[in-house]
Amino acid sequence: MTRVDWTGGMRFVGQGTSGHEVAMDAAAPLGADTAARPVETLLCALGGCTGMDVVSILRKMKAEPKALRVEIDDERATEYPKVIEKLRLVYVVTGNVSEEELKKAIELSLAKYCPIANTLAGVAKITYEARVDAA
Amino acid sequence: MTRVDWTGGMRFVGQGTSGHEVAMDAAAPLGADTAARPVETLLCALGGCTGMDVVSILRKMKAEPKALRVEIDDERATEYPKVIEKLRLVYVVTGNVSEEELKKAIELSLAKYCPIANTLAGVAKITYEARVDAA
Repeated sequence: MTRVDWTGGMRFVGQGTSGHEVAMDAAAPLGADTAARPVETLLCALGGCTGMDVVSILRKMKAEPKALRVEIDDERATEYPKVIEKLRLVYVVTGNVSEEELKKAIELSLAKYCPIANTLAGVAKITYEARVDAA
Repeated sequence: MTRVDWTGGMRFVGQGTSGHEVAMDAAAPLGADTAARPVETLLCALGGCTGMDVVSILRKMKAEPKALRVEIDDERATEYPKVIEKLRLVYVVTGNVSEEELKKAIELSLAKYCPIANTLAGVAKITYEARVDAA
């Protein structure tokens, strides 16, 4: 079970079975801007989930990157309920990885291994770009 | 834009436009268990999102709670892709709040104001329980 506790103002602190805390807060003046917003936290969860997959899959291909980041933009409906309609992910890798290897790893993650992407893909159109930068 | 950086092992650190960091890690031995898992982070984001709504709505009803927590359980498909199929939320409030007020606030959040719940509801069946405990 994951439990999220209100700690006053607009601050909430969550904790899942791992025991590690995840803090969130709203922007001032409603909140006190002490931690990330919930939607940012969701986008981070998506990036961490698919990022872990991509690192794992590239390792299995003997193509471990030197650096990897995932940039994420979301597009929400303009009227309530403001459902996330589009997610655009840019994977930027440096190291001895080919674009083909990176694309294969990303596609396996998005289509099969990342439960967060798998879930969000049922609602939002997810697109990605794979970029291998010089180290 | 939200950006999630791999910092080695299975650790990722995300940062959205607020500038606050959200760290994630895998369990040992794959990761080093330094931070929450991505799916826990997602569930925390959901709890923080709907929790902020419920506090705000109860305040507007002049029924600000003394304490509030949201407990969340998810149920995922047993085969890949392991899509989140069910989400069960239990809202536990103490303070001068009636069960009717709490339910109204929760339903407004889930149906209209919380973009994370609105999005996940397109894929997962979301159910909730509203509990007002003695202070």
